[in-house]
Amino acid sequence: MSLTERDYEAALAVLWQGQSDAAHDVAHLRRVWGNCQKIARLEGGADMAVLMAGAYLHDLVNLPKDAPNRREASRLSAEAAVAWLRETSFPKDKLEAVAHAIAAHSFSAGITPETHEARILQDADRLEALGAIGLARLFAVAGQMGAQLYDPEDPLAQRRALDDKAFALDHLEVKLFPLVETIQTATGREIAEERADWVAAFRSRLLREIG
Amino acid sequence: MSLTERDYEAALAVLWQGQSDAAHDVAHLRRVWGNCQKIARLEGGADMAVLMAGAYLHDLVNLPKDAPNRREASRLSAEAAVAWLRETSFPKDKLEAVAHAIAAHSFSAGITPETHEARILQDADRLEALGAIGLARLFAVAGQMGAQLYDPEDPLAQRRALDDKAFALDHLEVKLFPLVETIQTATGREIAEERADWVAAFRSRLLREIG
Repeated sequence: MSLTERDYEAALAVLWQGQSDAAHDVAHLRRVWGNCQKIARLEGGADMAVLMAGAYLHDLVNLPKDAPNRREASRLSAEAAVAWLRETSFPKDKLEAVAHAIAAHSFSAGITPETHEARILQDADRLEALGAIGLARLFAVAGQMGAQLYDPEDPLAQRRALDDKAFALDHLEVKLFPLVETIQTATGREIAEERADWVAAFRSRLLREIG
Repeated sequence: MSLTERDYEAALAVLWQGQSDAAHDVAHLRRVWGNCQKIARLEGGADMAVLMAGAYLHDLVNLPKDAPNRREASRLSAEAAVAWLRETSFPKDKLEAVAHAIAAHSFSAGITPETHEARILQDADRLEALGAIGLARLFAVAGQMGAQLYDPEDPLAQRRALDDKAFALDHLEVKLFPLVETIQTATGREIAEERADWVAAFRSRLLREIG
């Protein structure tokens, strides 16, 4: 029998103890899986078992944003995912595809996605940084890390270097808007552009409100 | 010579050590002062010295949202504000007005604002919970407190009690939307309603994105 969403969530409740936060929790995994399904439906030709495993296990090793080995997290997640999947009914001949998709999903790992599933998973996860959900996650992480919402002296960083560790709003220029250019699929691109436009409108509104 | 914004900010850098967070920092105080000025300009008749002192000193004692004596914070802030102002050139005959405005600004204190300045300061601070800035602050506090963004089983709390300590999105129904009804001035009400409408649109968008 194939693994289901419930199987993955039950496993994560054990495997992921204490590693989740507001931006990386079961709700995030469900949304990434939802994004994978949406993209796969429109793009066609994807192995859904590989995608489901990738979506639910891509953050299995969830290191804080400021951890020194943060760029290793996706490789460690891929290894942990394969170790767990090997003990289940998951098809052995698909383990390599899952491992590659998970390892390549991360921005900081710098691994090029070589398969259709890896490209879809990467897009699905990156869409999580954009739109209303992207902003909610951004500000939650900022609160958790003790960052300021924006630089009151220079919110748009017109007279200073961008610093998204200090100022949440800087993250839009540092990471969010450039992310759109890294989207691999046409479906993902369309969603990403619409979400990025909305984020830009949010920023304009915020700047008006703060005067 | 009258106290200026710079005087207050210099004082806060000393008086407020370690008490600021992403939602309660100098940027918040500047925005509240900006809101006070906007409301006072359109409503007329306010004592701007009292309002400036109130805006900059209203969170002087900033207790965490989960502190047991949280409802005392605004009274403690009022006392600390008066103690500090007494040592400056601030007019002694206006100290009581500042103290009342600060004590009454807080939702949890349950003190009715009895003066024009107290009503304006309360509105100015409550506007900070609404609009783009309100959401940024809401999610930052959620991240800081370890709350989830929303309940993935029931985001709108249709089959459970609202719980804004657990779920940031619940805070919209628990606190943000009801806040609009507590706004005292016509100018404040107009801004609050526009910001609340935008927050409602944000929520609709978020629900679409999370499927």
